[in-house]
Amino acid sequence: MLNAAASGEDGEGPWWARPDLRFNADGELTLAGHRLGEMAAAHGGSPIFFYNAERVRSKLEMVHGALRRTGLAHRVFYAMKANRFTPLLTYIRLTGLCGIDACSPRELEFALACGFEESDLSYTATSVSNEDIEVLARHPGVLVNCDSLSTIRRLGARCPGRDIGLRVNPGKGVAYGDNRLLQYGGRKTTKFGIYREHFDEALELAMEYGLRVSRIHFHVGIGYLPPQLPMWEEVVGDCAWFVDHAGGIESVNLGGGLGLPHVAADRPLDLAAWAGVIERHFGPRGVEVCVEPGDFIVKDSGVLVLQVNTVERKRQTDFIGVNGGFNLAVEPFFYGLPCEPVPARAEPRGAPRPVTIAGNINEALDVWADGVLLPPLEEGDYLAFINAGGYASAMSSDHCMRGQFSERLLFPRHGAQA
Amino acid sequence: MLNAAASGEDGEGPWWARPDLRFNADGELTLAGHRLGEMAAAHGGSPIFFYNAERVRSKLEMVHGALRRTGLAHRVFYAMKANRFTPLLTYIRLTGLCGIDACSPRELEFALACGFEESDLSYTATSVSNEDIEVLARHPGVLVNCDSLSTIRRLGARCPGRDIGLRVNPGKGVAYGDNRLLQYGGRKTTKFGIYREHFDEALELAMEYGLRVSRIHFHVGIGYLPPQLPMWEEVVGDCAWFVDHAGGIESVNLGGGLGLPHVAADRPLDLAAWAGVIERHFGPRGVEVCVEPGDFIVKDSGVLVLQVNTVERKRQTDFIGVNGGFNLAVEPFFYGLPCEPVPARAEPRGAPRPVTIAGNINEALDVWADGVLLPPLEEGDYLAFINAGGYASAMSSDHCMRGQFSERLLFPRHGAQA
Ligand SMILES: Cc1ncc(COP(=O)(O)O)c(C=O)c1O
Ligand SMILES: Cc1ncc(COP(=O)(O)O)c(C=O)c1O
Repeated sequence: MLNAAASGEDGEGPWWARPDLRFNADGELTLAGHRLGEMAAAHGGSPIFFYNAERVRSKLEMVHGALRRTGLAHRVFYAMKANRFTPLLTYIRLTGLCGIDACSPRELEFALACGFEESDLSYTATSVSNEDIEVLARHPGVLVNCDSLSTIRRLGARCPGRDIGLRVNPGKGVAYGDNRLLQYGGRKTTKFGIYREHFDEALELAMEYGLRVSRIHFHVGIGYLPPQLPMWEEVVGDCAWFVDHAGGIESVNLGGGLGLPHVAADRPLDLAAWAGVIERHFGPRGVEVCVEPGDFIVKDSGVLVLQVNTVERKRQTDFIGVNGGFNLAVEPFFYGLPCEPVPARAEPRGAPRPVTIAGNINEALDVWADGVLLPPLEEGDYLAFINAGGYASAMSSDHCMRGQFSERLLFPRHGAQA
Repeated sequence: MLNAAASGEDGEGPWWARPDLRFNADGELTLAGHRLGEMAAAHGGSPIFFYNAERVRSKLEMVHGALRRTGLAHRVFYAMKANRFTPLLTYIRLTGLCGIDACSPRELEFALACGFEESDLSYTATSVSNEDIEVLARHPGVLVNCDSLSTIRRLGARCPGRDIGLRVNPGKGVAYGDNRLLQYGGRKTTKFGIYREHFDEALELAMEYGLRVSRIHFHVGIGYLPPQLPMWEEVVGDCAWFVDHAGGIESVNLGGGLGLPHVAADRPLDLAAWAGVIERHFGPRGVEVCVEPGDFIVKDSGVLVLQVNTVERKRQTDFIGVNGGFNLAVEPFFYGLPCEPVPARAEPRGAPRPVTIAGNINEALDVWADGVLLPPLEEGDYLAFINAGGYASAMSSDHCMRGQFSERLLFPRHGAQA
């Protein structure tokens, strides 16, 4: 599995290997041609995230490519909550391939700081305060989606005549695995969006306040992959009802939630099939289609590199202690997402054996992975965690005052992708 | 339940009411005599934590009082990971009632910044790096506890002759409820401490490197209450083995983990019974006894006040949206700890009814409490979350760029406790 020479496209390397993320001929893990272990060492060994800019661009292009085949007008808004590292956000602005999905006043203002225009910004928040609405009032070009009657009422009073979108909730959701924490829609009533039974009231309220409803928004997925596509089809079909019922809708925003493989058994999302669903339901309606993926754009561009500082057997368990914990990347710990540790150097020191990767936070849950197969590691080695580009640094905390880390945006090195 | 006049000691008020935390005669929630709703409004309504300094002092005094009755020499080290708000930590230093339990180099240095001396600091970390050890080497007076053979080896090489403690793991733990995430010891092998089967090797290693083992440390609990006391007795008894086996031990640190009631049904920890366990096992051994509680000292001193911005029925659920989410206080969301929302003003607007309190983060899990009974609330009202003094602000993140909040240390107002 960690045979360095045989990684990549030929199907013999690790499942996650790609031309831009692989072991080179010397067995060194590279991203965009950069040797991550060496760079982490040059950085002093403290926790560091690397992001491959070109990978982000190619993910944006993949989404555009799929939507293009629907024949519909379309726009992509990158959900910056996934990763707002300033160089990365600025780079994304420069690609010209997307706008931004913002969900708070500070996100909105930070997107503007990175060069996005108001008209590039879609704003979809929840539990919106009057202070939030004041910020929206100062930015009349931002495309606001209201997710409650309360917001319609207060935005209407403050910004009469504004064009708005309505975030709706079809009462169904699509999530990676069956994770309770990740369910946006679903049987249980969530705080998000306007349900069918309140939709007429929402339209009337908007009219009452002189707001023009030109957009429908729904975001009902997280991390969805091929097994979730039938449910995706159902949800999209249900949401078309809102479009028809409202009348005069020009644009539909289908949210984010597009997933990525986390383990070898996961198949990547089939974007053609995904877009096919969109085409089937919205093609005949001739609306503009918008999406706002976060994770899909950035997650697999990112790798977190930590240093092994402790190798020790405790009872029957081989522990590998590293210099970073759950406060740097909460998903494996709190959301139950599988985490793939990869040695920065695939040296054939011996046969892989099951180890437990422990962080440096004084909490029992601070275990990156339990019983994963890794070749023998030594103190001082570097360990990389793939899929660290989304919802890791952006959600980090300074718990135990262990929250310091660095981030670096990588561009291809000469000959890197060859 | 929310009868304002009848709160407090007479047993008729809410279960959490105390002389320093109660509704005043006008039905306003007060902490140390300060009216929290009014102060939050004066602050502009954005999220704010209040901490009652005197409550922190009295919790420290309670712990001292209980330990004093054991007749043993004793010390208290406050686990600053629970709350490191600078004014609070400085206040704690000024009480003179405790040292600090630190778990990272930056915690250590921050404790020094607040006026603690090296000899006031107990340092117990996990997955310790060589960089961490360099910091310890520069602070020879700090009481370091080693939780692995690897740390003994590297600390020994760098600081030969140093006095050390050994963190041991009895393979058992005591936790509030049966929360998997909170299990420090227990059947599953954890990353913490040195197990019995490796203890001789640890002692030999220490000798080899010229380290003097003068202390035994164990921390195996979290949030434990009366139902956990029999298990506490068992754990303490097991740990006495390490003391006897090592020989020459002068001091035993029993960690933290002392719990507080989270719901009306929880009984407070009986500190006399707790100390009785300590006395039974360590009294005959004549060692100094140290403890390092975090939560017990600060948690119930703190209240987080948020503003209600959305009151809306969605299907059959009444949602109360507030201007702060799980990134400000992760425990109710990720650790499953019950959360008690209290209106800042107990006005008899109507009969209590079940509501769901939703935060302003765009994630489905961002629900403070589900189906809690509250009197009718209106947009603009303030809602207080009690038990917000520990592991809330200290673990906060800027997820969705919604991480801004304020904190305030409160001293008693004239006549406040009357
Ligand atoms: C409204 C909205 N849009 C888009 C996203 C991005 O989701 P993802 O990163 O899973 O694509 C989120 C995530 O929470 C969201 O709440
Ligand atoms: C070694 C150690 N001591 C003390 C504490 C404080 O625990 P508590 O706040 O539950 O009392 C912790 C918490 O993680 C710890 O790991």
